Amino acid sequence: MDTFELLRPLIRKTESKIILFVCDGLGGLPMNGRTELETARKRAMDELANRSELGQLVPVIPGISPGSGPGHLGLFGYDPVRYPIGRGVLSALGVQFDIRPGDLAVRLNFATLDAEGKVSDRRAGRLPTEENQRILKALRTMRLPGAELFLETEKEYRAVLVLRAQGLSDALSDSDPQQTGVPPLPVRALRPEAEKSARLLQAFAEQAREALRGESRANGVLLRGTAVYQTLPTFEEVYGLDAAAIATYPMYRGLGRLVGMTVYPVEGSLEEEARELERVWNRHTFFFLHFKYTDSTGEDGDFAAKVKRIEEADRALPRLLALKPDVLAITGDHSTPSLLKSHSWHPIPLLIHSPYVRSKKVSGFGETECAAGTLGTLQSKDLMPLLLAHAGKLGKFGA
Amino acid sequence: MDTFELLRPLIRKTESKIILFVCDGLGGLPMNGRTELETARKRAMDELANRSELGQLVPVIPGISPGSGPGHLGLFGYDPVRYPIGRGVLSALGVQFDIRPGDLAVRLNFATLDAEGKVSDRRAGRLPTEENQRILKALRTMRLPGAELFLETEKEYRAVLVLRAQGLSDALSDSDPQQTGVPPLPVRALRPEAEKSARLLQAFAEQAREALRGESRANGVLLRGTAVYQTLPTFEEVYGLDAAAIATYPMYRGLGRLVGMTVYPVEGSLEEEARELERVWNRHTFFFLHFKYTDSTGEDGDFAAKVKRIEEADRALPRLLALKPDVLAITGDHSTPSLLKSHSWHPIPLLIHSPYVRSKKVSGFGETECAAGTLGTLQSKDLMPLLLAHAGKLGKFGA
Repeated sequence: MDTFELLRPLIRKTESKIILFVCDGLGGLPMNGRTELETARKRAMDELANRSELGQLVPVIPGISPGSGPGHLGLFGYDPVRYPIGRGVLSALGVQFDIRPGDLAVRLNFATLDAEGKVSDRRAGRLPTEENQRILKALRTMRLPGAELFLETEKEYRAVLVLRAQGLSDALSDSDPQQTGVPPLPVRALRPEAEKSARLLQAFAEQAREALRGESRANGVLLRGTAVYQTLPTFEEVYGLDAAAIATYPMYRGLGRLVGMTVYPVEGSLEEEARELERVWNRHTFFFLHFKYTDSTGEDGDFAAKVKRIEEADRALPRLLALKPDVLAITGDHSTPSLLKSHSWHPIPLLIHSPYVRSKKVSGFGETECAAGTLGTLQSKDLMPLLLAHAGKLGKFGA
Repeated sequence: MDTFELLRPLIRKTESKIILFVCDGLGGLPMNGRTELETARKRAMDELANRSELGQLVPVIPGISPGSGPGHLGLFGYDPVRYPIGRGVLSALGVQFDIRPGDLAVRLNFATLDAEGKVSDRRAGRLPTEENQRILKALRTMRLPGAELFLETEKEYRAVLVLRAQGLSDALSDSDPQQTGVPPLPVRALRPEAEKSARLLQAFAEQAREALRGESRANGVLLRGTAVYQTLPTFEEVYGLDAAAIATYPMYRGLGRLVGMTVYPVEGSLEEEARELERVWNRHTFFFLHFKYTDSTGEDGDFAAKVKRIEEADRALPRLLALKPDVLAITGDHSTPSLLKSHSWHPIPLLIHSPYVRSKKVSGFGETECAAGTLGTLQSKDLMPLLLAHAGKLGKFGA
């Protein structure tokens, strides 16, 4: 019996409300003795930590540094090892493409090929987004026998290709050679059932090459991250939650949509995201609020900038608390230590606030206090049942 | 390989003795800054905590509040998600009925039906136990074609019905409508193989209705919690332990019997339970000692009373220690915070005392110290192998 089967008969649909505030890449590593979170001046979080339960989340299993997809799926309660999602599907969701079950989604990078057909720039000179849009318009006239074809601009040199047909498979190799000075690789089927998909993508790559002959920078395409879209059981189905996702970046909206959340896209600051949360507060019982910049500053290796972004998150907290959620959790999808300039495997700080917490006196919300917190060390996929319990949304298991 | 398979070749049968002292519903939540356990004046436990390992147990998975059945099965090392037990079986075990594999056990509530046959009181005016016994005596003369029928009084309006026949199934709906003003529901088969069982129970309900026509209060029966008894591998089989259960409440005796423990029923106080433990000390290698009232006071929401019951448990502790057990563990089957007046999902404080502990200086035995204890946060099902190890009953795994 998996967790969803265990939960199903226990779920109580109630009006209580849960906020899951995800500060992307929240966890860090000490530089000069303190992590980014421990360095930030964040009065609201530190005060709340004394009235909350602290713990830490292992995103997948110890040692595994997840991407945004598995990081968030874990937070949403979907074991990321059981529910892998391909990068292509994430990209398609991210650009708001209306992807359907069975579609094959592929990440497409425009690249520069030299006269011999070898890749000279894998990003086509960081092609401007407007160029990308212009070129895609032309490529959309292409036809592939036996499949519908969709193309959407992502950003700069990145686009998404979606094929729609019966019997597609994503057991395919990438055409992106991951280096310059060699030609794009042929797309190969890694299992017999992917032969058709491989033929379609290879035909696409060749036609595109032909169509782009006149381009100076973007005269080739590299394909990678092929993924067939398989929908997941929704938050409504597995938790009885009517969930909202508030996010500024397409990928996180896509992750919310994947599990059936209503997506409220915000273009702007965290303050504007908080305003959107207030606006839709009466419509939902679960709110996934995503803040991107704690991750991007960590990826840049900019400790001070990450500290500032955490302080920005702290300034939003009183607005969230003013809504009087029954349960509020603050955590991340993974750690992004400035020291590593990348996602890492380190557990993620977690704070759960509700009327039913075992709190203890702490110096604040930080990695060291969380590691010694009353919640102990959990896996990300354990979070959702805990939040449901704190919100009074779970009945007793067995007699 | 599951845990039992892993353990099997490692088990050493030795004379060393383990006491598992279960204070039901032990864990709590702070009110005025401290939990019940942290408030209690309990010199023996607090002193022992400084010579023991502390930790906390998650009874099932994070967020799940278990009933007594899954709570205890977990403590006994049987993954409660893999070994579900029906309420009917728990009740039959609880009244010391000699249930056999394949028997179908059903909880029977006496109810009051009005002139139209609608339920007017689901508990027959909280029928006195003596009335229950008198009425059952009459019902025992009933005969069902194709099945043996047993009836046992539980308490007040509650009784247990057991059917014995070939091919019984518990894929059945309840006849208890869970509300008044409507007639009892027919028992329906939820799968084809349960048709025979449904017919037998429906015939029973109709005959009982007829037989109870003269009763004023208990003139109907409601059936629920149907469960076929499937024995579990015994403590002897999986751990090589000759186990004793000492408990005042039928259900906990039943849980001990389910895993092959010799049951010593005690009617009386914890002091009398401790005396029984002393009496049978030479006969067994494992002792499950159950103390009920830390749970019932929590369920009543009576913080002060729960504190007093914990102090009562503390007074029994020196007698247990005087027996010089090789290993003594103190924990609960789940938390029952007075604040929630119910079983909860919060981890359960755990103390393990043996000569081989990593102890540290602590203020006492309490939730906060246990959350920071050297054992960390475990699942209840992890406890038994730990106790076996501390008792020197486990050999090395692998070379």
